[in-house]
Amino acid sequence: MLHFRFSGKEEKRKRKDAKVLKQLEKQRKKEEETKEQLRQESERKEKGRPYTVSIALPGSVMDNAQSPELRTYLAGQIARASAVFSVDEVVIFDEQGEESKTVEGEFKGVGKKGQACVQLARILQYLECPQYLRKSFFPKHQDLQFAGLLNPLDSPHHMRVDEETEFREGVVLDRPSKPGKGSFVNCGMRKEVQIDKLLQAGLRVTVRLRKTQKTDSRFYKGVVVAPHVPRTEGGLYWGYSVRLASCLTDCSHGYDLTIGTSERGSNIDLVTLSPFKRLLIVFGGLQGLEASVDFDQNLDITDPSVLFDHYINTCPNQGSRTIRTEEAIMISLAGLRPKISAAFSSMKVE
Amino acid sequence: MLHFRFSGKEEKRKRKDAKVLKQLEKQRKKEEETKEQLRQESERKEKGRPYTVSIALPGSVMDNAQSPELRTYLAGQIARASAVFSVDEVVIFDEQGEESKTVEGEFKGVGKKGQACVQLARILQYLECPQYLRKSFFPKHQDLQFAGLLNPLDSPHHMRVDEETEFREGVVLDRPSKPGKGSFVNCGMRKEVQIDKLLQAGLRVTVRLRKTQKTDSRFYKGVVVAPHVPRTEGGLYWGYSVRLASCLTDCSHGYDLTIGTSERGSNIDLVTLSPFKRLLIVFGGLQGLEASVDFDQNLDITDPSVLFDHYINTCPNQGSRTIRTEEAIMISLAGLRPKISAAFSSMKVE
Ligand SMILES: C[S@@+](CC[C@H](N)C(=O)[O-])C[C@H]1O[C@@H](n2cnc3c(N)ncnc32)[C@H](O)[C@@H]1O
Ligand SMILES: C[S@@+](CC[C@H](N)C(=O)[O-])C[C@H]1O[C@@H](n2cnc3c(N)ncnc32)[C@H](O)[C@@H]1O
Repeated sequence: MLHFRFSGKEEKRKRKDAKVLKQLEKQRKKEEETKEQLRQESERKEKGRPYTVSIALPGSVMDNAQSPELRTYLAGQIARASAVFSVDEVVIFDEQGEESKTVEGEFKGVGKKGQACVQLARILQYLECPQYLRKSFFPKHQDLQFAGLLNPLDSPHHMRVDEETEFREGVVLDRPSKPGKGSFVNCGMRKEVQIDKLLQAGLRVTVRLRKTQKTDSRFYKGVVVAPHVPRTEGGLYWGYSVRLASCLTDCSHGYDLTIGTSERGSNIDLVTLSPFKRLLIVFGGLQGLEASVDFDQNLDITDPSVLFDHYINTCPNQGSRTIRTEEAIMISLAGLRPKISAAFSSMKVE
Repeated sequence: MLHFRFSGKEEKRKRKDAKVLKQLEKQRKKEEETKEQLRQESERKEKGRPYTVSIALPGSVMDNAQSPELRTYLAGQIARASAVFSVDEVVIFDEQGEESKTVEGEFKGVGKKGQACVQLARILQYLECPQYLRKSFFPKHQDLQFAGLLNPLDSPHHMRVDEETEFREGVVLDRPSKPGKGSFVNCGMRKEVQIDKLLQAGLRVTVRLRKTQKTDSRFYKGVVVAPHVPRTEGGLYWGYSVRLASCLTDCSHGYDLTIGTSERGSNIDLVTLSPFKRLLIVFGGLQGLEASVDFDQNLDITDPSVLFDHYINTCPNQGSRTIRTEEAIMISLAGLRPKISAAFSSMKVE
């Protein structure tokens, strides 16, 4: 067997070559990573949903239920309709001049709001919150006395403990981290998640988990993202936010397409929607949007139709003299769903 | 002033002429009446709705409610959805092999049916019945214990007492009529209605009231018509009938178009319906139509889709993992409404 021995010079050259090769390899890897990142990004943009759908309704609908159980159930129906049709925001407006009350939790500081609006908001928020986070965000409250009767939303952000997913909702824990490391978050998994930032304990956060996790680590790793990211990048439905408004006009700022609903609106079958960024669909209470307009001190009109881009009868030839608001929400969202999707599929064709 | 006196002969001729004129006038009137009748008939046919829509669902959905109040409310939701979308028939099928029980009222003689199916049927029938007829048809029953919580259907055949309408639902009264005259009927008006036939007391009937009524008469006059007449001639929604079926296959005879519903069905946006006489839309329970197929001893298939002309996902991209049956009914009827109306408007174009 022959052994070659390199001369010093040769050896140096070899080492240099190896270094270059290594660098090239590194560069190639980096390029590939960037490519993959770009690919993923464009895939995300493909998968993502670029628009939001909001609904608005008066809190007074709660007073149209015949018992505390049914009051709770009614709120649950609105939550269910919102989840089924991927509603991103529910706005609850006052049309009764409800007494100003102290409003706990997320509503701290919201002024003149009363019983029905706040109670509806609280139940909606409770249902939207993943089960494993409820004890952190919903202390015992009489508004939630019958919460056990509510049907769960079962939306994609309500994860089961062992579900493997890119995103998870979590609550920042009150636990010290090593210097330079991020906070720990309870994401309803078997281990806690260490995020990239130090955040205030008790905050609700959306976490993107690392694709691969060290199995032997005591915790998972992830980064905090904006709550819209699962929707805009993953096309996932990620629950709704809840907002209180002091009157009808207070609802409607910041939307580029607005729809009012009424049996006196125009036939939905004849309506085409143009693409939008933020859609708001507004419902009236027991007395219709006319009553909401009447109450609103900013408005001296009587015909609600002038307030909206479209004023639509979403149930032509209804077989009942009146449709209740919670029914109208389900019906209208079912009727508008294909119109919304058509608005965006025609965009792609162009 | 001159007075003419006719001779006897002349007078005779004049009288004869008058008679002929009278006869001609009578004939003309009759012709006009026939013309008017034909016009009205064709108008009725124009106005009329020539097709029916039925829905079918398992009674087991009742067991998916969390309290007796909510059980009642759930039945009410199904009734409301049916009324809002002018459903003509609700078929309740057994998918659990419910124990055979004595079934009172309209269901006397219907064999092997149990608690959930019958209870759902009873509440649906109760709600469909105009309020002024309820004490005749719905004796106190524990299934109706929470009926006070139900939202009324408020459909066109639920008349207010002073409403002037062509048709009314009524109950034949146990009161003697003069020989050759028809029975008296309580139609929920200020006076009773004498119909053209002698019928058994206690029968529920559909009455067509005379257009003009003698104001000084002690009662109104009308004729009995088939229950479909308000729909086929007036285009009115006239409530639904309720039918019990022992299993899934027992539902589906006699329809010329059938639709099964499932999240695994094809996208509703891609479906076109052809015109039909009798449409049946079938819903599953907690476990979907697969479970109904499993239970059905007449079927040795496992895939429900083969049973129907269409198998449709009426809520593509649902934001909740499951849609409850009562929600799916509202959503599906809202989604199918424009498809049904398109089926018939395209017929007119042809
Ligand atoms: C009980 S209804 C209001 C009825 C009120 N009497 C009226 O005439 O407007 C409550 C709400 O449901 C919605 N709604 C009811 N029927 C509707 C229909 N056919 N189309 C669209 N929205 C409807 C509207 O938002 C309405 O304000
Ligand atoms: C609780 S769901 C059944 C869920 C069951 N796990 C399944 O996978 O079919 C009850 C019924 O609602 C109806 N349903 C639910 N989602 C639907 C959808 N997206 N499209 C049409 N019907 C649906 C179907 O009739 C279904 O049988």
